[in-house]
Amino acid sequence: MTPPIHRLAVIGLGLIGGSFALALRQAGYVRHILGFDTDPDQARQAIDLGVIDQASSDIATAVAAADLIFVAVPVGATRQVFSGMEECLLPTALVMDGGSTKGSVIADFQVACPDRLHQFVPAHPIAGKETSGVAAADADLYANRTVILTPTGQQTASALQRARAAWQACGARVEQMAAEQHDCILATTSHLPHLLAFNLMQVLNEQHDQTELGMCIGGGLRDFSRIAGSDPVMWRDIMLANQAALRISLRAYIDHLEQLAEELDAGDGVAIHQRFMRAQGLHRQLILSDSQAAASG
Amino acid sequence: MTPPIHRLAVIGLGLIGGSFALALRQAGYVRHILGFDTDPDQARQAIDLGVIDQASSDIATAVAAADLIFVAVPVGATRQVFSGMEECLLPTALVMDGGSTKGSVIADFQVACPDRLHQFVPAHPIAGKETSGVAAADADLYANRTVILTPTGQQTASALQRARAAWQACGARVEQMAAEQHDCILATTSHLPHLLAFNLMQVLNEQHDQTELGMCIGGGLRDFSRIAGSDPVMWRDIMLANQAALRISLRAYIDHLEQLAEELDAGDGVAIHQRFMRAQGLHRQLILSDSQAAASG
Repeated sequence: MTPPIHRLAVIGLGLIGGSFALALRQAGYVRHILGFDTDPDQARQAIDLGVIDQASSDIATAVAAADLIFVAVPVGATRQVFSGMEECLLPTALVMDGGSTKGSVIADFQVACPDRLHQFVPAHPIAGKETSGVAAADADLYANRTVILTPTGQQTASALQRARAAWQACGARVEQMAAEQHDCILATTSHLPHLLAFNLMQVLNEQHDQTELGMCIGGGLRDFSRIAGSDPVMWRDIMLANQAALRISLRAYIDHLEQLAEELDAGDGVAIHQRFMRAQGLHRQLILSDSQAAASG
Repeated sequence: MTPPIHRLAVIGLGLIGGSFALALRQAGYVRHILGFDTDPDQARQAIDLGVIDQASSDIATAVAAADLIFVAVPVGATRQVFSGMEECLLPTALVMDGGSTKGSVIADFQVACPDRLHQFVPAHPIAGKETSGVAAADADLYANRTVILTPTGQQTASALQRARAAWQACGARVEQMAAEQHDCILATTSHLPHLLAFNLMQVLNEQHDQTELGMCIGGGLRDFSRIAGSDPVMWRDIMLANQAALRISLRAYIDHLEQLAEELDAGDGVAIHQRFMRAQGLHRQLILSDSQAAASG
């Protein structure tokens, strides 16, 4: 089979971009992979690890002859990446991004490449690790994971079809929803939990001595706080890019915490028990059922 | 070797009590195990699973001829369990509990068994799962885990020594600290994270449609929220029993969230980045270093 993608350009050689390259290569879906990263070390490592075939010295060169361009940079940097692109894109090229917020990325593309909206399909793979950098890239990162496409409606049917096919070649389940809806849900399922985990680290550190803490850390805390090991720049950008939706989730969260604090003060065991019962039930419904689906999927 | 414990009585046949029985049996540390649970189903299952040899119909009978009594009930029930005990204890018996809060359990024992304080050593194994009940019991639950003893100072030297030895026979690392200090640290490392995870379930449910949510749940959320599957009664009791310390941690946590909300509103990327950098660094220092110690321990 001739690989469907002749030249793939990956802009941003981190976990997400690197894993996309490895997955497509493993699937025999791509012939040649170009990569660009602002950090020359990451680019060198990407070549050494076989993630890309060739490192480009700038974005324009990487993009020029590519039929698929995947932008996998922190969402605070997408506008700048897109801004060098419009002049160089082949008319047949498909541009995708992998950012965790979609409204902000679409707005960036609209500003930077207003005449290329028919070639653009925003994507968000719901996959990640707390480790970052190209050394963490993994050909199976997207296997059985969900990728959400948030088409702008201005893309061609063929662009959307090619976007779906590329992610399916990575082993992903492809879903589709509006960017606004995506951003609103991810604010609660992803951005808020990261913020909460980061926040706990600060409180742990302020309230207690490290040696004593060391004795009192169990598996519950380890799992809960795993995402506090995530990349600070990436997550700062996400929080700012999705600020409006995140504020709503955060406000609702704080309101419930304040209610809980009042119930604690009042020693209201009945109310607290009801809360925890409901939460345990929701955990079964929302999270465990999803884990089972993922495991069997 | 004659097993050091002739008769072990386990009051409360759940994950913690059941695992203690299985671990001591596996170590050849105990000859005969009696058990009591208010739920006859759990008691029957405990016999069927070989966790205990015999189910007692009441606490007094279970305790009467035991040289080690392990109380593993929700901390809201310890006072009632202790209150039937003073009359029946052998003068050589050692009483331990496995509760997650120590101040409240010690107060309960002081009220219920004022003349037996020399026989009592409070213990907290930092081990657990989100599954509960005797069916989840596991002989290796305590292997390489920390158990914190919070002696009251009124126990005999031999009682403390026997307590350490029993936990070491379960494979645990035994540490010691004051009850107040334990409760203060655990409020932040364990009770607060549970409360935060329970709280997120509620917000997820209120803010979003379940079908859409299903597409947007990643590994980060799954790990973060694992503890929201924990037993609601057990955790209501813990929160109430450690209310004073928990309120301090919760207040500090909400204050930091409010600061973050302000920084988000102001679009203050510098402040948010500094926060997240600090949090990531603390995660490495506090949590990852501990995981490595646990893995190599």
